[in-house]
This record gives sequence, C-alpha cells and structure tokens, in this order.
Amino acid sequence: MRFTAETSSNGVVERNFTLGEVTGLLWSPASGSHHAPLVLMAHGGGQHKRAPGILGRAHHFVIRCGFNVAAIDAPGHGDRPRTAADERHIAALRQAQAAGEPIGPAVVDIHIDLAARAVPEWQATLDALQKLPEIGAGGPIGFWGIMQGTGIGVPLTAVEPRIIAAVFGCLGHEGLAEAAARITVPIEFLLQWDDEHVERQSGLALFDAFASKEKTLHANAGGHAAVPRFEVDSAARFFARHLGQGGTSPA
Amino acid sequence: MRFTAETSSNGVVERNFTLGEVTGLLWSPASGSHHAPLVLMAHGGGQHKRAPGILGRAHHFVIRCGFNVAAIDAPGHGDRPRTAADERHIAALRQAQAAGEPIGPAVVDIHIDLAARAVPEWQATLDALQKLPEIGAGGPIGFWGIMQGTGIGVPLTAVEPRIIAAVFGCLGHEGLAEAAARITVPIEFLLQWDDEHVERQSGLALFDAFASKEKTLHANAGGHAAVPRFEVDSAARFFARHLGQGGTSPA
Repeated sequence: MRFTAETSSNGVVERNFTLGEVTGLLWSPASGSHHAPLVLMAHGGGQHKRAPGILGRAHHFVIRCGFNVAAIDAPGHGDRPRTAADERHIAALRQAQAAGEPIGPAVVDIHIDLAARAVPEWQATLDALQKLPEIGAGGPIGFWGIMQGTGIGVPLTAVEPRIIAAVFGCLGHEGLAEAAARITVPIEFLLQWDDEHVERQSGLALFDAFASKEKTLHANAGGHAAVPRFEVDSAARFFARHLGQGGTSPA
Repeated sequence: MRFTAETSSNGVVERNFTLGEVTGLLWSPASGSHHAPLVLMAHGGGQHKRAPGILGRAHHFVIRCGFNVAAIDAPGHGDRPRTAADERHIAALRQAQAAGEPIGPAVVDIHIDLAARAVPEWQATLDALQKLPEIGAGGPIGFWGIMQGTGIGVPLTAVEPRIIAAVFGCLGHEGLAEAAARITVPIEFLLQWDDEHVERQSGLALFDAFASKEKTLHANAGGHAAVPRFEVDSAARFFARHLGQGGTSPA
C-alpha cells in the first residue's frame, strides 16, 4: 500500500493510496486514530471513491465516531481503466435504458462480474490496511455500501469474517440471496419505498434473506436516489453500537 | 384537569392528573419546560399509562429532548373501571386464545370500540394540557403509540391537526387503512419482521397506507414484543427532528 497524497480539513485527514491496480482513500481523525474501528465504503454504479455520498458519510463517520474509513474505486470506476468487459456492460445498460426496458437484468450481470473482481481486491486492501500501525489487526470492521455497493458488499461480507456489521440497501435479491443467507452479522438495510429501479418485493426479499439475528430494515418514502439525510446519522449510530467508538489517542 | 400527586426522579417531574373519568400522567423536565414540545403516549392492550415501555420512553424523551410527555389510561385500562363492553371484548379475546385461533379479528373489534371512546378523551386531554402555562397553545405536538396505541393513535391523528408527527407500529392495516390514508404528517413506523400476532404483509400494508410524504418503516428481526431498545432513541431523534428540542427555562 502506497500513500500518494494527503490533505486535511475539518479535523479529517484524507490520504490517497494505491495497492496494485486498486486506487483508494483513507480518512482518519486528525486528532489520532490508534486502533480505531474501520469502516469500508463501496460507492454506487458509475460513481467513484470520492463521490459526494461517500465523502459526506466518511467525514460524518470520522468526526462523529472517531472511525477510520476506507473507500476504493470499483473495477472500471473512478481512477481505474475500463476493461472490454466493463465497456460491454455499460453498452448493455445503455441499450436497455434507450429501449425503455427494465435495467435490472443488466445491473445484476454487472454486479456479478464486478463482485468477482472486487471481493479479492477488498480483501487485499483490508490486509494492507490492517498492517498500518494506526489500524492494526483484530480491530472491529464494518462495511457500508448501497446499490452497487451492496452488489459487491454482500458477496464480500459472506466470505470475509473480519466484517462484523454492515449497512446495505437499495438493491433487490436477484443474484444475491444465496450470499445473503450466509451472512449472520448485524445488518442495517435501506430500502426506498417508491424505488423506480428496484421492485419493492425484491428489496424486501433481500432483507429477508439475511441470516442475521439482528437486522433492521429502514424503508423510506421516495425514489431510488432520495435516501434521506438522517440515514447518514442512523448508520453512524448503527456502527457505533457494533464497532464501538474510536479513541482519539494511543492507549 | 386536576393534579393529584407529584414525584420527581432523575431530573424528571411526574404528575398524576384526572380529567373527568380520564386518569393520566404528565412528565416534564425538572429544569423547566416552558412551551416545550409535547409528546402524547398511548400504551398497549392490557397495559396502562405507567407500563415499563411507556415510563422508559417518557423519561428518555424528557431527559434527551426536554419534552413534556403525557400518557392516559385507555378506557377500561389501568386505574379506570371496565364497562360491560370491555368485559365482553376481553372474553372474546380469551376465547380465541384458548381455542388457538388467530386473535386478530377480536383485536380489531376491541381497537375500533376503544378508539371511538379514546379519541375524544385524547382531544379533551390535549385541550386541558394546552391550557397549562408550561405547555401553552400552539406548540408542536407528537404522538407515540404501538400495538393498541396505534389502534387508537391512527384514528386520533387522522382527525387531530395539532399532532404534527407520529410513531406507530406493530399492528396491521385491518380497520385502520382509511384513517391512515388521511394522515399526511411525518411517520416513523415500527414492524417486527417475525411478529407472531401481526401478519408481515398486513403491517407493510398499514405503512403503505399513510399518505405522508415523509414516512420511515423500521422493521426489526424478532417477535411481537422484541422491539429493540435502540428504537427508543430513534423515536426521540425522530421527534426532535420534527418538534424541535425543548428549552429548559422560560424565554
């Protein structure tokens, strides 16, 4: 893991890193983050590691909870080149949109391909992050990702025992139900009640599929992109309950 | 409204009151509650105004938010005598339970009868509370009630424009869908995903029925009585968003 840039604002240190082909960001409290809990954040489709929805939540998690937060660009997203497969997926998505057809099937195919590449990348990133002295091995780790972030995060959490709590949502069960049924950690699941892209029953079916004893569905009135702002704070409280609060100085 | 007793603990003043046949409790911050927001709380079936679920939330709302909180005994509950109709309802409920039949139809009948009596009682109580100098007219008012509290609270909120935000839940749509469709204020709705008394689809249908532009469903894994403790704080945050925070001294 190589750090390539560092900036600081509002008490949050932001560091760019690369790990092989992976480009990422690590946010930490300027006041110190010795062995603080770590939250991994996966962005939505067509977005990137510093999209407003990621950046705003990362800052909130760092400032409110004292966490370290890491985000990486998904394959073919952000600072990463697109493969021929990525281009084919985008073309299939645009074709469905242009024809006025449901984009669901194309999205499921994209997520299956992306997850196959992104899950090992996330695991390698986690290995490298845990070698940093400010994070360390054995600390509590959470995952946050909705939409495409759920398409990658559910398969990741199903195979990654270091993740002990996760926020998912805004996606249906197609292609994910089997992985969800292997997940037993606490889940907070966001669903938009009037989602124009995700069938309500399919979103409810994904929530239902998690084997977790503690799972909470937050369904809000509104369309796909209208997740209310108060859910940012709700996610922070969820992670604080399960990961603990970050310290601000070495023990 | 006549106050009959007053105690104080942990910064919360608790006053018993009567208003005609109605017996109630008013909790306020010991530090003062001049024109603070008011939350009305309705207890569950067979419970009373000082049941643990009411008392714990009332203290949390007072301490955390500086609110005034009022609860009254439903007709035939707590300190109030049962009518012949109440006795018939209880007998019908026990008969269904003894026969191993679903209790839903008996519960719907009970709620319809109770709401017809309790809605005017709540409105008279609200009139009297707003004449108290520490509450006053025109301040923001919320309603909290799950289970039987929803059976009474949905018809109340449908006809009572002074209520500007409400927490409901753990009840199905039978007998309530029409009243819910007349409600447009922000709603937080609790649903137990594995509820042994309320069909999941019926609970989802009641949430769906509210005409509110801002409504949030919190569905938690677990049975009818297993509403997680963190929902107490979530409700406080919901009310603080919509009612504002209480002051602690006269302006």
